[in-house]
Amino acid sequence: MQVLVPYRVDEPKTRLAPVLDDEERREFSRLMLADVLAAVRSAGYDPTVLSTAPLSGGDCVDERPLTVAVNSHLEPNTAVVMADLALVTPSVLGELFETNEDVVLAPGRGGGTNAIVARHPQFRVDYHGASYRDHVEICKAIGASVRTIDSYRLGTDIDEPADLAEVLLHGDGRAADWLDDRFELSTSNGRTGVKRY
Amino acid sequence: MQVLVPYRVDEPKTRLAPVLDDEERREFSRLMLADVLAAVRSAGYDPTVLSTAPLSGGDCVDERPLTVAVNSHLEPNTAVVMADLALVTPSVLGELFETNEDVVLAPGRGGGTNAIVARHPQFRVDYHGASYRDHVEICKAIGASVRTIDSYRLGTDIDEPADLAEVLLHGDGRAADWLDDRFELSTSNGRTGVKRY
Repeated sequence: MQVLVPYRVDEPKTRLAPVLDDEERREFSRLMLADVLAAVRSAGYDPTVLSTAPLSGGDCVDERPLTVAVNSHLEPNTAVVMADLALVTPSVLGELFETNEDVVLAPGRGGGTNAIVARHPQFRVDYHGASYRDHVEICKAIGASVRTIDSYRLGTDIDEPADLAEVLLHGDGRAADWLDDRFELSTSNGRTGVKRY
Repeated sequence: MQVLVPYRVDEPKTRLAPVLDDEERREFSRLMLADVLAAVRSAGYDPTVLSTAPLSGGDCVDERPLTVAVNSHLEPNTAVVMADLALVTPSVLGELFETNEDVVLAPGRGGGTNAIVARHPQFRVDYHGASYRDHVEICKAIGASVRTIDSYRLGTDIDEPADLAEVLLHGDGRAADWLDDRFELSTSNGRTGVKRY
């Protein structure tokens, strides 16, 4: 199975700007990518970074928008795993990959689709808006069997400052270590967030 | 096994006030409670509502704060399931209940603990702050084995307006039906929320 990990090189993780500066966002997003790639490898698969610009040897460069880029690299047996799943582990990826349905979806908060396994030749992704619902509809339209993976780790993509608390609480990769050196949990106002040491 | 479902009767779900009025919040929170109780029963267990005021026959009334009330009703074999887990299903509760560890934790967003199975006689809950981390520490201190359940459904408690989108996207109980009659998904500003019809 082909495992694609899309990655935007320019201005990664803009919604983290309230707490991380440009250089920090670049560093942190690279570390999350590295953690995801390591987890894919530990699960026994060879990931391909689908990058908007050259990163290192072996990547596949496609500067087009996410949906177009992914669809043009879909083969009948392809997984797509987002690069900002900082809580992902080899075992949860194993559960995702070792399924039998035509399409397997791991929803993210707010209706996103954080990981997909696509085995049906007519399946195409559409990452606009509440993509999880759209992906279920696409499966119905093409008669593909679909399964939803119930995973907190796959469901947690790191987009906003509040998400960083999830990394401190549940992460144990390089991105979590990096964050742990700079931030601690803050529960001062009754909600859990992060603050710098 | 005893299954406790704590429920606050007065002013439930205050953080939903921006989108639901007092009466709606009361209705919606009762429906979520009913969905959770139905799922516990379908999983083969008999739930006890640990309520701050009388609700109906068979409930256990304890007006004290959550942590104190739960701890005074802990028996060595007790599960505690939050009443606002609108996405919960019998099968995911089955996975939670049919474990062997001394303590089993289902984390919620922001470090909360949405469900617990406590089999160790010295375990006590502490729902203040980032309770998931505290519960792991308590287990270490008393030498209890601990397991964390990786579930998006158990991890999604319904507290804030944005959480209502999760109910529309992934719920199929009475609370989801109620919400579906009044709200639809909104993805207008690039983030997924809900808006009234």
